[in-house]
Amino acid sequence: MTANYPTRAVIREVGLRDGLQSIQTILTTEQKKTWIRDAHAAGQREIEVGSFVPARLLPQLADTAELVAFAKDLPDLFVSVLVPNLRGAENAIASGADLLIIPLSASRAHSVANLRKTPDEVVAEVARVRAARDAAGAKTLIEGGVGTAFGCTLQGQVDPDEVLRLMQALLDAGADRVSLADTVGYANPAMVTDLFSRAIAIAGDRFWCGHFHDTRGLGLANVFAALQSGVTRFDTCLAGIGGCPHAPGASGNVASEDLAYMLGSMGIDTSIDIGKLLTLRERVAGWLAGETLHGTLWRAGLPKTYAAAAVLAAA
Amino acid sequence: MTANYPTRAVIREVGLRDGLQSIQTILTTEQKKTWIRDAHAAGQREIEVGSFVPARLLPQLADTAELVAFAKDLPDLFVSVLVPNLRGAENAIASGADLLIIPLSASRAHSVANLRKTPDEVVAEVARVRAARDAAGAKTLIEGGVGTAFGCTLQGQVDPDEVLRLMQALLDAGADRVSLADTVGYANPAMVTDLFSRAIAIAGDRFWCGHFHDTRGLGLANVFAALQSGVTRFDTCLAGIGGCPHAPGASGNVASEDLAYMLGSMGIDTSIDIGKLLTLRERVAGWLAGETLHGTLWRAGLPKTYAAAAVLAAA
Repeated sequence: MTANYPTRAVIREVGLRDGLQSIQTILTTEQKKTWIRDAHAAGQREIEVGSFVPARLLPQLADTAELVAFAKDLPDLFVSVLVPNLRGAENAIASGADLLIIPLSASRAHSVANLRKTPDEVVAEVARVRAARDAAGAKTLIEGGVGTAFGCTLQGQVDPDEVLRLMQALLDAGADRVSLADTVGYANPAMVTDLFSRAIAIAGDRFWCGHFHDTRGLGLANVFAALQSGVTRFDTCLAGIGGCPHAPGASGNVASEDLAYMLGSMGIDTSIDIGKLLTLRERVAGWLAGETLHGTLWRAGLPKTYAAAAVLAAA
Repeated sequence: MTANYPTRAVIREVGLRDGLQSIQTILTTEQKKTWIRDAHAAGQREIEVGSFVPARLLPQLADTAELVAFAKDLPDLFVSVLVPNLRGAENAIASGADLLIIPLSASRAHSVANLRKTPDEVVAEVARVRAARDAAGAKTLIEGGVGTAFGCTLQGQVDPDEVLRLMQALLDAGADRVSLADTVGYANPAMVTDLFSRAIAIAGDRFWCGHFHDTRGLGLANVFAALQSGVTRFDTCLAGIGGCPHAPGASGNVASEDLAYMLGSMGIDTSIDIGKLLTLRERVAGWLAGETLHGTLWRAGLPKTYAAAAVLAAA
């Protein structure tokens, strides 16, 4: 039977940003470089290495410029960073990052509480970032990431029409790419199918990435639904680090190694060597002793059938 | 958009059998009755209460006949039991169970090691069970459950054609229902879509149930794929108890409460009150102190949007 999902997909590692910003342990710059180097060696080709925010807010990400420079030296590695505003974007552009992500929260309540801007004020900031990028003649791509796209712990419901309005506004303001994120783990496969199908119909190949949290265990089911809607890039964190600030002990992002396994076993090419990724997971887990880690594959290991299954499925 | 999955689905609780047979703690008959009563009160309408195997093999399930009698007194509860052979089936029929499940392992290596019969010898046993059931004039339905349907820790690959041949043989031998089980957690959504679509095309409405383990985190993604293939009944264990004898510490069956949440949030009616199910989970977790439990929802709780989302999706 013909599969209704892509033959290739990208797993974008966001553990160094979304993961590390949410936990207590602060990794050294050398540890982060080792992580980036080993992730690259395991076949990961897109990594979000940090965030250009004031060091007093997130001291654990203060070395982002150094990490961009390090990562840019690795062959074929597409390096992204998160930025909250124009100031951060200017730093990102100066750093030579390939892509900068500006988060927008579709929940007005969440946006005001977390970003101290309304969603439409973030759209206006993206227009200023685009002007600055173009004025600098820089190649850094601009991604507008619409968060709380499936609901919000403060506001509850977030209207899908409002999510898509804001996504369109980001495109109109000059975002090269747009993404949707289930920031608080409220999505289910039915919502994912509906919203991502509509988003891709609007944004076409400017639609970039799906970002799912596993807060209620539906992370991989949501990825499978999104794959069927045509999404081919997913944010994940090694060992599922990050957690959920609104649910102590709950899972954070989908675990990179679990998604690499799911996609690989389905014959979807991610370029990732899962054995190497599991070795890296063990290394990072050692650095993060005492933190709650997540993910499932690492306990059971790969099935005896794994390599053959992937080959068969790809045939 | 039109959803390509059913509007109703059944979660069959197998924690009292598949879960309890795989852990050290032995629950008392009174605790099991409380579990059955509370699961029924939470809206569960199909429960596998135990297994008719010799008490020396599984002393923790020695009270199965008493549990069938207790469960049969609860209104609208469909009571099933597992049996390994004709002797067990005779006990199940005598107990008045609504359904008996005979497991068959499609992996010849696994079948011989675990059941001490080849798969075709199990088919022959099902024919004898059917004859005994009919001779007794009993109403107990016979389900043939094909396990290791996606691979096996001993043998590795299991040929899907062989899985379907054995499923057809079970139907021919007189099984009223057939099911497929990913006994060792090797399935992925692509395999599920392929095998379940073919199985339902063969068995029609005699196809009964999907049984997934969450050993590598794909349990709910596999359920979503099976739903899209037309499967409307799933085996689960409260708190995901059971584990995997081949992978210490790994997850067992899909957790009942997580699947109830996924289906409910998608607007698929399961008749289950998740709040009550989470309360029961807490109670059972208290009895199982020291055992490794699984599942995700219980940490984070229901989303603020849950009730409204379910209503919207069902509209």
